[in-house]
Amino acid sequence: MPTYIAPVEDMMFLFEKLKNNKHYNEIEKYKEVSSELVKNILEEAAKINQNIILPLAKSGDENPTVLENGVVRTPPGYKEAYTKYIEDGWTSLSCDPKYGGQGMPKTVSAFFDEMLSSASLSFKLYSELSIGAYNCISHHATDDIKNKYLPKMVEGKWSGTMCLTEPVCGTDLGLLKTKATEQSDGTYKLSGQKIFITSGDQDLTENIVHLVIARASDSPNGTKGISLFLVPKFLVKDDGSIGSRNGVSTGSIENKMGIKGSATCVLNFDDAVGYMIGPKNKGLNAMFTMMNLERIVVGIQGLGISEIAYQNSLNYAKERKQGKANNSKLSDGADFILEHADIKKSLLNMKSIIEGERALCFWLSQQTEVSLNHQDKKVRQEASDFVSLMTPVVKTMFTDMGMEITSEAMQVHGGYGYTKDQGIEQLYRDNRITPIYEGTNSIQAADLVFRKLVNKNGDIIKKYLDMMKNDCKIENDNMKFFVKELDYHIKILSNFTDWIKEKVQKSKDDASAACNDYLKTLGFVSIAYAWVKVLEVSFKDYNNNKNFYEDKIQTANFYFKRVLPRAESHFKIATTGSDYIMKFKFI
Amino acid sequence: MPTYIAPVEDMMFLFEKLKNNKHYNEIEKYKEVSSELVKNILEEAAKINQNIILPLAKSGDENPTVLENGVVRTPPGYKEAYTKYIEDGWTSLSCDPKYGGQGMPKTVSAFFDEMLSSASLSFKLYSELSIGAYNCISHHATDDIKNKYLPKMVEGKWSGTMCLTEPVCGTDLGLLKTKATEQSDGTYKLSGQKIFITSGDQDLTENIVHLVIARASDSPNGTKGISLFLVPKFLVKDDGSIGSRNGVSTGSIENKMGIKGSATCVLNFDDAVGYMIGPKNKGLNAMFTMMNLERIVVGIQGLGISEIAYQNSLNYAKERKQGKANNSKLSDGADFILEHADIKKSLLNMKSIIEGERALCFWLSQQTEVSLNHQDKKVRQEASDFVSLMTPVVKTMFTDMGMEITSEAMQVHGGYGYTKDQGIEQLYRDNRITPIYEGTNSIQAADLVFRKLVNKNGDIIKKYLDMMKNDCKIENDNMKFFVKELDYHIKILSNFTDWIKEKVQKSKDDASAACNDYLKTLGFVSIAYAWVKVLEVSFKDYNNNKNFYEDKIQTANFYFKRVLPRAESHFKIATTGSDYIMKFKFI
Repeated sequence: MPTYIAPVEDMMFLFEKLKNNKHYNEIEKYKEVSSELVKNILEEAAKINQNIILPLAKSGDENPTVLENGVVRTPPGYKEAYTKYIEDGWTSLSCDPKYGGQGMPKTVSAFFDEMLSSASLSFKLYSELSIGAYNCISHHATDDIKNKYLPKMVEGKWSGTMCLTEPVCGTDLGLLKTKATEQSDGTYKLSGQKIFITSGDQDLTENIVHLVIARASDSPNGTKGISLFLVPKFLVKDDGSIGSRNGVSTGSIENKMGIKGSATCVLNFDDAVGYMIGPKNKGLNAMFTMMNLERIVVGIQGLGISEIAYQNSLNYAKERKQGKANNSKLSDGADFILEHADIKKSLLNMKSIIEGERALCFWLSQQTEVSLNHQDKKVRQEASDFVSLMTPVVKTMFTDMGMEITSEAMQVHGGYGYTKDQGIEQLYRDNRITPIYEGTNSIQAADLVFRKLVNKNGDIIKKYLDMMKNDCKIENDNMKFFVKELDYHIKILSNFTDWIKEKVQKSKDDASAACNDYLKTLGFVSIAYAWVKVLEVSFKDYNNNKNFYEDKIQTANFYFKRVLPRAESHFKIATTGSDYIMKFKFI
Repeated sequence: MPTYIAPVEDMMFLFEKLKNNKHYNEIEKYKEVSSELVKNILEEAAKINQNIILPLAKSGDENPTVLENGVVRTPPGYKEAYTKYIEDGWTSLSCDPKYGGQGMPKTVSAFFDEMLSSASLSFKLYSELSIGAYNCISHHATDDIKNKYLPKMVEGKWSGTMCLTEPVCGTDLGLLKTKATEQSDGTYKLSGQKIFITSGDQDLTENIVHLVIARASDSPNGTKGISLFLVPKFLVKDDGSIGSRNGVSTGSIENKMGIKGSATCVLNFDDAVGYMIGPKNKGLNAMFTMMNLERIVVGIQGLGISEIAYQNSLNYAKERKQGKANNSKLSDGADFILEHADIKKSLLNMKSIIEGERALCFWLSQQTEVSLNHQDKKVRQEASDFVSLMTPVVKTMFTDMGMEITSEAMQVHGGYGYTKDQGIEQLYRDNRITPIYEGTNSIQAADLVFRKLVNKNGDIIKKYLDMMKNDCKIENDNMKFFVKELDYHIKILSNFTDWIKEKVQKSKDDASAACNDYLKTLGFVSIAYAWVKVLEVSFKDYNNNKNFYEDKIQTANFYFKRVLPRAESHFKIATTGSDYIMKFKFI
């Protein structure tokens, strides 16, 4: 079974040393979130993840969830762990104190999300969508609904789901068929089938709050006729206690390649009572509040799984002896594989991507908080645009890199990596859902290129590029190499951006065929940008923590020499256009 | 369950139109292998693979092999299929008629290997190592041994294995501990444990012929003291009939991520009777005969799995509707996803790599035959050096590209790709062993760079580069773009080669840290070289089969625009050296 030590030191480094973010620091309600408090939280988080949740990964993989007599049974140990998990208040971490939450910013909760993803993605998914549903309800529902549902969800006694996909509509929600018929009391009755519903049923919570998109009987076709409904598994009485079973049942659960401890359900809605959330026919807008935050968390899942894959690869490389290193001092026998240049390279590849991603994610968490909580509307808007821009990037890069990293981890383990005993192959299988769900990575790339670069608020990508260029003007000899490299790649990104903006207007297929590559270029450059922020601190603060900062500088060095340069190839290849692709006739 | 139609047309195109290989055509014994005969064989091969073997893939995944009372039981259907398979003579395809074989060249048997890999890799593995063992025995054993064992192996009634790995030695065979003690009658008794033995036991054949490397009691340590032994599961009497059980038993079988229908065994040898094959202490040389041919077949496995993944992705893209294409003619509803630029690009990526690989593999099969069967020793040697050079390239490129392609296939299938129902995720899991076994892909890359570029016969890579340059001098307007691109990338490869040759001499860690990238560059260029051969025919013969050739030309166009250019990035990144990697201290 893989081992795991939560990277609290790196997280605290980010929290303490990269806090220097003007707008974030202006948020009133987080001024009391001290380093000491955060350190305590992360240390407690490390304990529950390392000790209680990590063993659930193997348990869930070996004993997948089952559907028995219409009820989903989670794997052995999940119930006990979940009880402890909510007793300790982990579901409430980022929620509003008004509903019993701890009110921690995303700069803290994102670290917790990462740890939980490292420990057990399957287990994580039982509470993850609850937070998504919480966010959606707290932004769009009436006070009545909020007061009735949110405290129980924050407490973790009730959970939440997101019901979008149907058999004929995954990516394309406009095709959805689930119907909602208004009743005389203003409630609705929903009928239809939803598929791929994560945690659609389970035996961990007393109630499940489904957020369902459906079409009201008098709504138009397509995406403009979609409304959002809250449909509880058990109806909730006026006093907040649980009433009779609602018309929602689990048709089946998916047999999947990985995340086998997570129940992926087919849910059948048969005249299920639902309450409309937000305005009629604006359901997708409300749902996207939830989806966008959720997409960042999926990116964090990729980061978390990468981290545990890296840790175990490094441990194995320190223990396993095979072959003589080029500069071996041995006369007989074999060296630790960590001494082999190729293995060292592979480990540094993992490490430099992971730490860069974590820094980028921290910056994005700051932006998210600014977008939600800054006093100035204009500042909020600007941050929100950056968050929108980077959401598909983080979702896609972190999950794709997660595949690269878990794959490299398997290679480091050789034949043992392919067997179930080591648990490395499980990380690879579990992570493989992340480039697919919450919108495939290609959908993310299209979203980025067609909707996020330029929006009604202006030329967002230009602002982002300007910000990077500006932050890159650092006069420091130590930074010279890094700044030069980043600058060079920002220019490539700028050229790619000009090209793709034009194509979005004049030749959409060119843009579509290039969007994955564009996202990668933006991703590699953004991670480099995050590294530059880390490097600035590392050089300035060097003498206070030499070993730590030297490690950072050398890790960054690898990133700038071997990872960042991949960006250019994406630019060159993608800008060959698409006419030769589109005219191809598949037989 | 995935469907599969064997690509007989493409295979016959290669066999008929790319046969123009001087030395290959000089091989006497293949002059009678006509197109008609080959077509008949491939059509029969298509039938058994499509109808009988394909269903075994799912069966094996759902009902993995089990070890019951010391006996391995293969999945349901394997026994019946195997009986039919040997009745039809498929094990004998490439074997010597002297032992009952059909004497087909590898230019034919490689196509069969591909089909079988597409249909079911797990099932394939039960006969694949038999062919490896057959080759090894027929090259290195005495006539007595050959006459006793080979006819039954050719018939498929007995199978073969390759027993190398031990718990502490996978990559590094010098560490092996299995002991062989000579007996007074000249036989040996072997004791030790071998792990990861593919088809180490099964219930398909009457006997199993293990080829085992071990150290004779009086042999030196390290790789110089390794000898090769034939150890049958059941001892064979002088009349060729089966006698008593030998001291070989199955300790356990591995629980793996994929190829679950294949038994991966721990074999315990307890005073097992063994017969030395080839000279004492030269066991690794003999084993490498087997390993090298086997490594090419592992590459072909990656190609076969890529092909079935591609076919099913294309079918799905033609059936599944989601979203509107950029140039949609629909007013309502959704287009087939095949109309989306991004999906088209993904399918062309798969197709252009697969068809290029198949062409390269065909060239390599020709070279292999020349290396084994040409009348002129010098010609044999030159071909053999090219085969040695390209073996790690084909093994690594085809299996790595197999991961890319099966991963893209999952993305095309969206959420359905992650469920067991579609069977796409199984292709991804099954293929994941191919970059690991028969020497991890990093070991292949090190082998290429340190042992294959230059050997005792001279500067092999220079000869290979010269050959490509020479074959690239084509005066044809249609070929201009392709030739120019290949030429450009041959130059990059040449520069990379010069760099790495120097590093092999002067700075081995630089070479080690670059070897994976070097292999990729050589691989991408070699596939382009194979494409150029296909293109030459396609333009010349265009009017005789317009649709087919137009498809080839457009597919190649994609390869040269979007795949080949990846090579350059590998060159740039790898030549940044390794000092910053080697001095990194992992905490």
